Amino acid sequence: MTDNEPAGQLVQRERLGAVELLTLNRPDHLNAWTADLEEEYFAALEECERDAEVRAIVVTGAGRGFCAGADIHGLKGASESGTVRAPGRLPLQYPLSLGTPLIAAINGAAAGIGLVQALYCDVRFIAPEAKVTTAFAKRGLIAEYGIAWLLPRIIGTSRALDLLLSSRVVTGQEAHAIGLADFVVPPDALVDTAVRYATTLATSCSPTSMRTMKSQVRDGLDTDFTTAVRRSEIEMAASFAGADFTEGVTSFLERRAPQFAPLTSAH
Amino acid sequence: MTDNEPAGQLVQRERLGAVELLTLNRPDHLNAWTADLEEEYFAALEECERDAEVRAIVVTGAGRGFCAGADIHGLKGASESGTVRAPGRLPLQYPLSLGTPLIAAINGAAAGIGLVQALYCDVRFIAPEAKVTTAFAKRGLIAEYGIAWLLPRIIGTSRALDLLLSSRVVTGQEAHAIGLADFVVPPDALVDTAVRYATTLATSCSPTSMRTMKSQVRDGLDTDFTTAVRRSEIEMAASFAGADFTEGVTSFLERRAPQFAPLTSAH
Amino acid sequence: MTDNEPAGQLVQRERLGAVELLTLNRPDHLNAWTADLEEEYFAALEECERDAEVRAIVVTGAGRGFCAGADIHGLKGASESGTVRAPGRLPLQYPLSLGTPLIAAINGAAAGIGLVQALYCDVRFIAPEAKVTTAFAKRGLIAEYGIAWLLPRIIGTSRALDLLLSSRVVTGQEAHAIGLADFVVPPDALVDTAVRYATTLATSCSPTSMRTMKSQVRDGLDTDFTTAVRRSEIEMAASFAGADFTEGVTSFLERRAPQFAPLTSAH
Repeated sequence: MTDNEPAGQLVQRERLGAVELLTLNRPDHLNAWTADLEEEYFAALEECERDAEVRAIVVTGAGRGFCAGADIHGLKGASESGTVRAPGRLPLQYPLSLGTPLIAAINGAAAGIGLVQALYCDVRFIAPEAKVTTAFAKRGLIAEYGIAWLLPRIIGTSRALDLLLSSRVVTGQEAHAIGLADFVVPPDALVDTAVRYATTLATSCSPTSMRTMKSQVRDGLDTDFTTAVRRSEIEMAASFAGADFTEGVTSFLERRAPQFAPLTSAH
Repeated sequence: MTDNEPAGQLVQRERLGAVELLTLNRPDHLNAWTADLEEEYFAALEECERDAEVRAIVVTGAGRGFCAGADIHGLKGASESGTVRAPGRLPLQYPLSLGTPLIAAINGAAAGIGLVQALYCDVRFIAPEAKVTTAFAKRGLIAEYGIAWLLPRIIGTSRALDLLLSSRVVTGQEAHAIGLADFVVPPDALVDTAVRYATTLATSCSPTSMRTMKSQVRDGLDTDFTTAVRRSEIEMAASFAGADFTEGVTSFLERRAPQFAPLTSAH
Repeated sequence: MTDNEPAGQLVQRERLGAVELLTLNRPDHLNAWTADLEEEYFAALEECERDAEVRAIVVTGAGRGFCAGADIHGLKGASESGTVRAPGRLPLQYPLSLGTPLIAAINGAAAGIGLVQALYCDVRFIAPEAKVTTAFAKRGLIAEYGIAWLLPRIIGTSRALDLLLSSRVVTGQEAHAIGLADFVVPPDALVDTAVRYATTLATSCSPTSMRTMKSQVRDGLDTDFTTAVRRSEIEMAASFAGADFTEGVTSFLERRAPQFAPLTSAH
């Protein structure tokens, strides 16, 4: 949407052991979402998903913000043309389909589509002073990209309606109190703490287990209990025959950390 | 159910800017629910819903209670006759269908059907000493009017079972802690604070946005994620072509409060 | 799974008024789950369910733990044979089907299948230092026995993914803060407090009401709101014709505790 931004630098990538740290990188615009940013972010996620060496991903924002929402210039264009921007190569909810754990480190403002992207992550770390807002109702917009469905399943319908109707700003401290973020961490330690958590996932938890569990939780929201139990029985039988279970039990009996092999097949 | 109560005074109405304040008004009976009270309350909600000048509604109780449940004389009659009272003109869950935001200011006891009505509101403010109880199990009753469905979606299944099975009394303070109420406010400031919140909805948030969002959240509880995303895409396209989006973006760029027009079509 | 354990003593039973206290009793193994333990625990639950004198059940663990998960010797056998152990006489989620309220008093470690069993209870009391962990991902296993479905409906999807992906240990204090347990109680008072709560259910709440409510909440998770309301209307009509409603109203008007009769029909 905005010109003159060097391609390939809207999302910084850094490998930290088995963790990929992605940093949304339009700090002069509080990392506001553009089509180009989306393309680079999703491309980075796709590469992580294909790379068995990446066992967990952390996403944060450069500078003061996490992602302050859709770039206002893009919004203005949409308002003037009365049409939605061209759809991206991947659906906006692509991150929900990842088998690799995706952790948000919300360092600052997360608004509108920026909040939606934070909610598409599996687990959220947040700085106490970070400001979170749905923002849509103040712009004459609606609950975009499935947030009306997702938010009540994270914080309950009452708090979801409060945040959606009022567009009020919630601090990181309050976001943690109402269950919107799982951990509140001082800003200086935020990204390190999230990376450390991701490293624990990468080193102590079976990649196959995590990939299966993510799918179970996502699918389970759309199925009844009996279906979920039947699925878990099938997955259990498969896991009992797997190398990771052997290593999980053996390492436990030997009182050492497990050494789970990377995922071998494409997923 | 009770005689000698002047019609048209069981629910007080007061217009405060774009907010309608409704006060359940049987203070000598802790505003216990009767067929007449129901008729007046729902008629008031219907009028608010038709009146585009009313952009948010607050409901509270006169005197010490919010609504202490079904009037015991009505219950006694039901017990003696073994039949349920005649159904009202509108279903009891009518408030859930409103497009206008409905805010509860729970000033005191909310029990049984009184708690159900508080849960049918979108957002809840509560006084710290207010007493909340499902009450049903202590009267030999069941989880009435969909509360067995609604409560777990607000506070989770565990806390819902606790409150339903035990009928225990929860204070406003605890109600806030477990997510049953969104805000706890000292009694002297309770209604003012709820009205101020409602005024923010009325003046800063698009009425069309809020009406759509409420429908999205309610419908989203009964649909899968894909359906919810598809719905949001359709609503997004509509919002992008709407006057409220233009005003939302323009006011943001001009760093002023938005001036959203009232809803024009009947809804 | 383990030999030399005297049958009939893996679950201790104690009748305390109308409450049955069940104690998982393999303290030397932190009450790790075996096929024999399962058989005795479920048989005890079945007897309680058939015995109208038992109006609530409390389950806890002997010694330092609640239930530290599947017995590691059983797991090792499964790992070596690559097959799941023979299914029990009843499905593992049998406790969810009880009409009698089932209260967990989590005195210590609850891991894996031990945590699953704690989640199958209706309400949870926990000691502040008790350690809770899903454990599956660290053993190369998946989200077993429907926990991927159940946990998000208790604590929301975000906290559920955190606990499932990371396998991290949560203390009783944190379990309470995130809604995984309803009450946190010092260890010396834990079981007494849970039994006192169960006694309140047994003496103040209608057994028929509680049985119906449990079914309403469970079924309501798999149905839409309209279906739940319709069900509640049918149950309401039945309750209005019941003896417990008459006693509930009469005792209220007479300002005395209700005396609900035991369930008479098999359930």
